[in-house]
Amino acid sequence: MASKPLPPKSYGVLLFPGFQSLDVFGPLDALNILSGQTPLSLSILARTLDPVSTAHIYQVNFSQSIVPTHTFSNPPTDLEVLLIPGGFGTRDEKETEPVVEFIKSVYPRLRYVLTVCTGSAILARTGVLDGRRATSNKKAFSWAKSQGPNVNWVAKARWVVDGNIWTSSGITAGMDLIYAFIGEMYGEKVAEEIANGSEYERHTDPDEDPFAELFGAVDQMLRVIYREERE
Amino acid sequence: MASKPLPPKSYGVLLFPGFQSLDVFGPLDALNILSGQTPLSLSILARTLDPVSTAHIYQVNFSQSIVPTHTFSNPPTDLEVLLIPGGFGTRDEKETEPVVEFIKSVYPRLRYVLTVCTGSAILARTGVLDGRRATSNKKAFSWAKSQGPNVNWVAKARWVVDGNIWTSSGITAGMDLIYAFIGEMYGEKVAEEIANGSEYERHTDPDEDPFAELFGAVDQMLRVIYREERE
Repeated sequence: MASKPLPPKSYGVLLFPGFQSLDVFGPLDALNILSGQTPLSLSILARTLDPVSTAHIYQVNFSQSIVPTHTFSNPPTDLEVLLIPGGFGTRDEKETEPVVEFIKSVYPRLRYVLTVCTGSAILARTGVLDGRRATSNKKAFSWAKSQGPNVNWVAKARWVVDGNIWTSSGITAGMDLIYAFIGEMYGEKVAEEIANGSEYERHTDPDEDPFAELFGAVDQMLRVIYREERE
Repeated sequence: MASKPLPPKSYGVLLFPGFQSLDVFGPLDALNILSGQTPLSLSILARTLDPVSTAHIYQVNFSQSIVPTHTFSNPPTDLEVLLIPGGFGTRDEKETEPVVEFIKSVYPRLRYVLTVCTGSAILARTGVLDGRRATSNKKAFSWAKSQGPNVNWVAKARWVVDGNIWTSSGITAGMDLIYAFIGEMYGEKVAEEIANGSEYERHTDPDEDPFAELFGAVDQMLRVIYREERE
């Protein structure tokens, strides 16, 4: 009987200008607490070691800056889990090109990739989501789909797991994703205790999602595209 | 007929070592989005301008550092709303003494104070909560009460409003607090749109709180204390 693999210890989160702060800190806050009971390490990765701001052209005077610990060109060698946030900054193709290149370079040695919101649109640009099921922010779903024409985009989902890739819907969905991930990796009891301590009422059904309908997000399934191509 | 006061424009959040990241970024993420449609400014206040880390003795290798914009000794003159986070760092009396002094000095010219989690315990130490109703983290409720013996601590509450002071329960309760605050100040439609865009299902009843019972948190009401003192 195959034994369950050891739960991951080494996490990384990547930042780019205009990232969405809660995409990052929703999951990280739960992992911060988890690190108090099981040894974990975190690297904060960016193009340079300069603080990275949430500011973008539509949010200028109201922003926060986070200090990276590693550059994309010098990531920790033991990285196991990479968290990719979304945010308005994902729309800047030039600024996010180094992010896409970094993910491509590091993906083969990762155990898991987690995305929040339009982080899945960035991941889609690397090609590693091709042929996989994934979800994204529901308000920006059409745009996310345009970034991954060969991805099976699932509209009605709080989060989607396909192999080692966990993608979640918009902003706060990252919190439900991380609790599901913690439950899977470290045990459901651990996830429940952290959620209770955070006074968070989790959504535990990945398929429950009122926001797909609210924003009119619809699936993009490859089999449909293939059929149309044959006609 | 008295006209409604203008909604606030100038926000500040204070940081100290070992602050809880989601106490800060739950509310700020919603305000970040709000700032895209109404002009707002944010100052990030700390003892010095050095980045402030979430790290504390129980969470050493897994932390994030935020860059302040102002020191406690030089806050913006137009500050209207102050957000006070909680976190394990609130237990360090020496490290948080400058925080308490800063709040005392700035409180008289603030329009509103918002606290998340054990941020209300720090606020209680300043004395401005004396005789007021307030709430705090439910797992740390007994400790919070010890920091404010003259406060009417309400156990069963997601958040509590008493005059210009809005206190919320543990960690994620700060998100419901900020949406209620945005609704009150900028209109319920604005709050609803931001929550939907964040794919957040709000708790809109401040008195609904399953965590008080879960953690056995009980009220501390001054009238009860006074009666006991007379006997």
